[in-house]
Amino acid sequence: MEFRVTLPDWAIAENERLPDAIVDVENRMRAIIRFSRLNLEHQTGGPFAAGVFEKDSGKVVAVGVNRVVPASVSSAHAEIVAISIAQQKLETFDLGGPDMPDHQLVVNGRPCAMCFGSIPWSGVRSVVIAASGEQIEALTGFDEGPIHPAWRSELHKRGIEVTEDVLANEACDIFRQFAASDRPVYNGRSGS
Amino acid sequence: MEFRVTLPDWAIAENERLPDAIVDVENRMRAIIRFSRLNLEHQTGGPFAAGVFEKDSGKVVAVGVNRVVPASVSSAHAEIVAISIAQQKLETFDLGGPDMPDHQLVVNGRPCAMCFGSIPWSGVRSVVIAASGEQIEALTGFDEGPIHPAWRSELHKRGIEVTEDVLANEACDIFRQFAASDRPVYNGRSGS
Repeated sequence: MEFRVTLPDWAIAENERLPDAIVDVENRMRAIIRFSRLNLEHQTGGPFAAGVFEKDSGKVVAVGVNRVVPASVSSAHAEIVAISIAQQKLETFDLGGPDMPDHQLVVNGRPCAMCFGSIPWSGVRSVVIAASGEQIEALTGFDEGPIHPAWRSELHKRGIEVTEDVLANEACDIFRQFAASDRPVYNGRSGS
Repeated sequence: MEFRVTLPDWAIAENERLPDAIVDVENRMRAIIRFSRLNLEHQTGGPFAAGVFEKDSGKVVAVGVNRVVPASVSSAHAEIVAISIAQQKLETFDLGGPDMPDHQLVVNGRPCAMCFGSIPWSGVRSVVIAASGEQIEALTGFDEGPIHPAWRSELHKRGIEVTEDVLANEACDIFRQFAASDRPVYNGRSGS
């Protein structure tokens, strides 16, 4: 009567090895892409990683990776994992609560339909994206789902800024590495 | 380096008290609406509940309730909680996997943008809804988020049937009871 999503041991160790803060946004993304590569190489989930940072200081709150298959939880996408760990660490469901610094979600690929919908609830004020949804689908075969066609403006309307195409090539390299492996593509179609 | 969402004690006890199967779909919804009322009355989360059933037999797999505030997890909506508990119980991320019976999600209000996006990943083949998104927003003040404008057909396209307006009046009674209480409305706006 509960569910639990854990990070693999290597990711716990890598989280502990991260600096307290990563000031430059490209370097935040570089760290996230590294987690996506390690998750693929360790075979501990899909090739996706996400981090929650304090936007101005770059303080690292939590980095998560995709855990769908090992955790047996279809919603354990990297964004949900990183946001949930950050929220339980800070003991609040709202990363945009009063007296809190602005938080930023950094992710190696555009959030899927579900993760997009989770962003306004999380309280993050900024989303930084590497590869586009089209790049992910073309390179990996993952289905990104029925995201709102005006997803950018729907986030803007809610006071959430969106930055795209940050180190997209580097992110796509990992998706190519994934495609060349025999790791499973699980998605809505796999069950049909 | 993990996150965990638990059901409150009363919901664990109520889950154990449920019959093995609930054959009639209206009765499945009646049980879910009861959980939504109890979650409000026990002050253990928002007025939302969801259940995963075997579609044909009505076998109860898991019933979850909204745990956003007590769990400090913004994505701990009833649908995500019920689906994740069901998946970890059955040890699969895909409730629509090969050799499995069809699974049905029964929920007291139309899924929000995030939960809508989570449905294709879950593997459920059928969604049964009581109150509409408009009814929830009008009665409670909760924001249902930027759901895809063609959400019904996006689910149909993926082989997921949608049944709406099942005991909507009974579900709305709980939302009215919520509105008359002083329980918090947490959503994307609460942090802005």
